[in-house]
Amino acid sequence: MAEESGVRGCMVIKPWGYGIWERIQRLMDDRIKAAGVENCYFPLFIPIGYFAKEAEHVEGFAKEMAVVTHHRLIAGEGGALVPDPEAKLEEPLIVRPTSETVIGAAMARWIQSWRDLPMLTNQWANVVRWEMRTRMFLRTSEFLWQEGHTAHTDREGAMEEMLRALELYRSFAEAELAMPVIAGEKPENERFPGAVSTYSIEAMMQDGKALQAGTSHYLGTGFSKAAGIQYQDKDGAQQFCHTTSWGASTRLIGGLIMTHGDDDGMRVPPQVAPHQVVILPMLRDNDEDEALLAYCDEIRCTLVAQHACGERVRVLVDKRPGKATQKRWAWVKKGAPLILEIGGRDAAAGQVTTLRRDRLWNEQGKPNFSASARDKFVALAAAELEDIQTSLFKEAKARHDANIVRGIDSLDALSDFYAEDKHYPGWVELAWSRPMGDELEAVVKQLKELKLTVRNTPMGSKPVAGTCIFTGKPAVELIYVARAY
Amino acid sequence: MAEESGVRGCMVIKPWGYGIWERIQRLMDDRIKAAGVENCYFPLFIPIGYFAKEAEHVEGFAKEMAVVTHHRLIAGEGGALVPDPEAKLEEPLIVRPTSETVIGAAMARWIQSWRDLPMLTNQWANVVRWEMRTRMFLRTSEFLWQEGHTAHTDREGAMEEMLRALELYRSFAEAELAMPVIAGEKPENERFPGAVSTYSIEAMMQDGKALQAGTSHYLGTGFSKAAGIQYQDKDGAQQFCHTTSWGASTRLIGGLIMTHGDDDGMRVPPQVAPHQVVILPMLRDNDEDEALLAYCDEIRCTLVAQHACGERVRVLVDKRPGKATQKRWAWVKKGAPLILEIGGRDAAAGQVTTLRRDRLWNEQGKPNFSASARDKFVALAAAELEDIQTSLFKEAKARHDANIVRGIDSLDALSDFYAEDKHYPGWVELAWSRPMGDELEAVVKQLKELKLTVRNTPMGSKPVAGTCIFTGKPAVELIYVARAY
Repeated sequence: MAEESGVRGCMVIKPWGYGIWERIQRLMDDRIKAAGVENCYFPLFIPIGYFAKEAEHVEGFAKEMAVVTHHRLIAGEGGALVPDPEAKLEEPLIVRPTSETVIGAAMARWIQSWRDLPMLTNQWANVVRWEMRTRMFLRTSEFLWQEGHTAHTDREGAMEEMLRALELYRSFAEAELAMPVIAGEKPENERFPGAVSTYSIEAMMQDGKALQAGTSHYLGTGFSKAAGIQYQDKDGAQQFCHTTSWGASTRLIGGLIMTHGDDDGMRVPPQVAPHQVVILPMLRDNDEDEALLAYCDEIRCTLVAQHACGERVRVLVDKRPGKATQKRWAWVKKGAPLILEIGGRDAAAGQVTTLRRDRLWNEQGKPNFSASARDKFVALAAAELEDIQTSLFKEAKARHDANIVRGIDSLDALSDFYAEDKHYPGWVELAWSRPMGDELEAVVKQLKELKLTVRNTPMGSKPVAGTCIFTGKPAVELIYVARAY
Repeated sequence: MAEESGVRGCMVIKPWGYGIWERIQRLMDDRIKAAGVENCYFPLFIPIGYFAKEAEHVEGFAKEMAVVTHHRLIAGEGGALVPDPEAKLEEPLIVRPTSETVIGAAMARWIQSWRDLPMLTNQWANVVRWEMRTRMFLRTSEFLWQEGHTAHTDREGAMEEMLRALELYRSFAEAELAMPVIAGEKPENERFPGAVSTYSIEAMMQDGKALQAGTSHYLGTGFSKAAGIQYQDKDGAQQFCHTTSWGASTRLIGGLIMTHGDDDGMRVPPQVAPHQVVILPMLRDNDEDEALLAYCDEIRCTLVAQHACGERVRVLVDKRPGKATQKRWAWVKKGAPLILEIGGRDAAAGQVTTLRRDRLWNEQGKPNFSASARDKFVALAAAELEDIQTSLFKEAKARHDANIVRGIDSLDALSDFYAEDKHYPGWVELAWSRPMGDELEAVVKQLKELKLTVRNTPMGSKPVAGTCIFTGKPAVELIYVARAY
């Protein structure tokens, strides 16, 4: 799906991996557009001065960024290329870590009156954050993402939008990625710098660790004040906008891999699979190949005329030279949902041999091939793809639910639960007193010693009884505690 | 559509402009995928060393690039942020001007055998070339583009692919952008550095200047030799691949503006219009608004269920507060193909009032409104959109054809034709002897004095008779000479 590029922390995303990203992008973009949000594009480079205010006021401001200082190369000593000292920029440029600041400046220009609100903006782009420790798809110096930025007249409108984005991420993750998640509010210490509140979706990976897979922030008027985003209200008075921002990235592909991968490689849910059905004609370099290819192509044509999950079925006939079994295992490893192997005899008999990626092995430990009449297969293919989508979700959901532990009622019990000799211990659901400030810092420190973090407080969490195991005060809400990526 | 960003040469692409780019991207990407090309993503940063070989060997190698030298900011004197001297990169990184070199390195890793060929790769990305003089959409330091890179066993396969890409650009420009172009081969001096041959599509702007709107290169084996792209042939021998590359960019939007714009703003061809029909309800802030909005929404629903140009009709009901006439002119300026103004009386009478953006004024110099029964309008709307697409092309094609001049038979006549006092002189079609090397340089110099360039030799150009006006030798082919962006 991807490989190291030779530039530290930057990856080459190969066709299958990028195809998954394209599917994610298209499906998520459809939802974003349906919500009335408009896409724009902002510059890659941001003048260093844009960050000055943020650096002064925002604690936790990340300074690890790629800095452009020159605009020309020149042959240096020994002929090697070096930055031309004559072409030094007066003001260095930063490669965007997010476009927050420039989008804020644009909104300040674009918004004059209440009539211009809400302003709902989104960008799909590459961003760069210089990471010391990188991990393919999960933490890379360059990554691809979308960042939504919206401005509203009041808190209510902004909160509604922020929660709409969170719900978009939640339902997208579950419906399209077949990845169960918990949507909820992050604790104060995990808020985006400058945010009034930060919400996230958290997915459980197969090793029990949590992955933050999307975030949505309500920024109050703090960001508007810094960027000068003002509007004239109906009474003619100048007011600051309430803003939100929300983002999801290629990290979702990392989540997908660690949710659905198995010993044989990846299993891609049909909704985001670049090809849902891969047909492998068992070519023999003889006279029969032509008829075989015609037969395969006929199946392809019948399939692509059908709809699965509301879209046309995506089918590839893999005609490349090579041994059929090698090609089969390559597609198994990539995780194509449905693999068809078709030989001359199948073609003659009007049959197909299929392999469902999510049910790869039979009870005898052999590849779980299933032969059926072509017409019957074709009639059921769309339903089968939808069934694979559902099955993958169910499997992940069962694991997710089974690995959330309740009833831990002391810090010692928590410590014991996550002791070194326990494997894949999953998440712990606790009730806590929602500490803030110094009190929260103390809790965070205790958790850190156990290599744990608070993930979030789930949406719609009912009032809870009992005592907070950290503070000893009455508990007020649920949280999830977990190890995390 | 776009505005200056505050970073020299980088633009902010606003929703309507970016929406056009999204349409271009989707339609072109569908064609690219249909041709069996796979999308990948390569890193934004390229180690400086990758350019060393190119800089040595390739004349015309452009050195104006953005150079990243540091990976962290720190508070300097007076608190201003500066690059942290402790965080200087050992080897500077270049922000990709194209991904040619890294894609070449990847192909060298990915290709082993003839079985891996052809390898057909494409990337959609932002690239940066430090431009001294910039112009919105036409020449910007950062721009968005696609770059196709393909590798083949032999010259024949590579040439076929290169011409396929050229034809893709030609038919895309004419069918989707309604922009007539001439596809053909560039003269030797205009070749991409290192290319064996370079082809382009050239569009004529309303001022008669030429715009190179897409290029396709056959690179021979030179690039493979530099990057080490080798394959084992059927006899087991190592061979170098024949490669191609081809690209088109946000420059196409510049071409679109200068092809279809008029005194009232932009006219966007329906194929690439983010909204093809914009419905403006004439809201009055009273009790009737609700019924009016319901009427408008009903029309929207009926329209989006229809297909125009093979896709669902794209409709926006613009409900934002504001005066209807102001909103009308805003959409006229943006160039929405079909604008509907609907008041309470229209709703009551089951009518619509429409304005075709390409036929904005009637003979009396008034906005060319046309009233019709809703059902009749709805039944004809898709056909009307297709008619707008065709009309815009016909209009541009007529202008294009009328501004190509033939019969100029001497350098003096050419000089006179392009004399200062002549306006919008268009292009000149000439027969020349296809000079090369020094002889070509002399011709280029002569043309440069007239601010002219050779655009290309049109595809399928028949053998010609006569004498080359530059060299006095027998002419062998046609060329177009023009001023250019």
